[in-house]
Amino acid sequence: MKFCSECAHPVHLETPEGDNRQRSVCKQCGTIHYVNPRIIAGCLPVFENKILLCKRAIEPRKGYWTLPAGFMEQGETLEEGAVRETLEEAGIEISAGQLLTSISVPHISQVHIFFLTQMDNSQHAQSTSESLDVKLFDMDDIPWKEIAFPTVKKTLRHYLEDLQEGHIQTRIFDIHFDERLARAKN
Amino acid sequence: MKFCSECAHPVHLETPEGDNRQRSVCKQCGTIHYVNPRIIAGCLPVFENKILLCKRAIEPRKGYWTLPAGFMEQGETLEEGAVRETLEEAGIEISAGQLLTSISVPHISQVHIFFLTQMDNSQHAQSTSESLDVKLFDMDDIPWKEIAFPTVKKTLRHYLEDLQEGHIQTRIFDIHFDERLARAKN
Repeated sequence: MKFCSECAHPVHLETPEGDNRQRSVCKQCGTIHYVNPRIIAGCLPVFENKILLCKRAIEPRKGYWTLPAGFMEQGETLEEGAVRETLEEAGIEISAGQLLTSISVPHISQVHIFFLTQMDNSQHAQSTSESLDVKLFDMDDIPWKEIAFPTVKKTLRHYLEDLQEGHIQTRIFDIHFDERLARAKN
Repeated sequence: MKFCSECAHPVHLETPEGDNRQRSVCKQCGTIHYVNPRIIAGCLPVFENKILLCKRAIEPRKGYWTLPAGFMEQGETLEEGAVRETLEEAGIEISAGQLLTSISVPHISQVHIFFLTQMDNSQHAQSTSESLDVKLFDMDDIPWKEIAFPTVKKTLRHYLEDLQEGHIQTRIFDIHFDERLARAKN
């Protein structure tokens, strides 16, 4: 942020009185511009013994498989965001079931939230402008090496573990930036 | 938002290509300015059979009692946000336990998240710049009519119900704007 979105004056970084961290502050109109983490809401859609995945048509991670999910919008509930994203990315209208995971990802200031959802016969997944392909995968055929994001991989793994145990859990955890992995990639 | 925070040019509302809702868009530099819901993270601190509440020193709802909670910051996990807010508002260093509630509040585009936390003898709650008073309340003495926010009231009620049942649950739900209540107030 370089300019005040209220009056167009250049902003500068300072710690406002009574605050304890730096914000973009406008000296002309006094506005303090707060920036906060964003929520990604999505679903893990299940039909019989299969899991629905979407092949991303958009960067980042274009061509990789993901669960339908995206940024929660103003005026939505978590479930409404997850349901809308599932329609936009997989072309199916579902309702959100149990919360599976709530994953803080602090190095990108996001929280990723996934709900379980049961599909029925009437729902025909199809590719959309956001997905090159949408496909039901047998539990044994999940393309683990082509999963787009760590939060999706963890959500899938936990769900499959819980299925075997016969008890689907709600899990709250974090994923932190892995420096070793970043170094290995460079 | 009136001006682009990247180049100071006036922004206007339009639906970007491939999108399905209006955003503030800058025609000069092309930046699309997204606005998304914010997360409030907090704790329900318990010591023996008492619950800790804070009397707000700041508007909104100054003088009303609340659980320590506030806006999650960039670079934090949900638990880190809840722990920091509890230190800032109640002066105690705790660690976050079980997730109690995740409450979508769509009419103000917020998600409120509360963790249970057990205090011990070493923790001495004290008033802070954000709290006029910080006090442990017996379960029977919760000042229900002076609770600051509906999400705090619901979190307290659910916790007390669960205590009686002997099983503390994680609850995911919504609170919607109540028009009748708003009319009654006006």
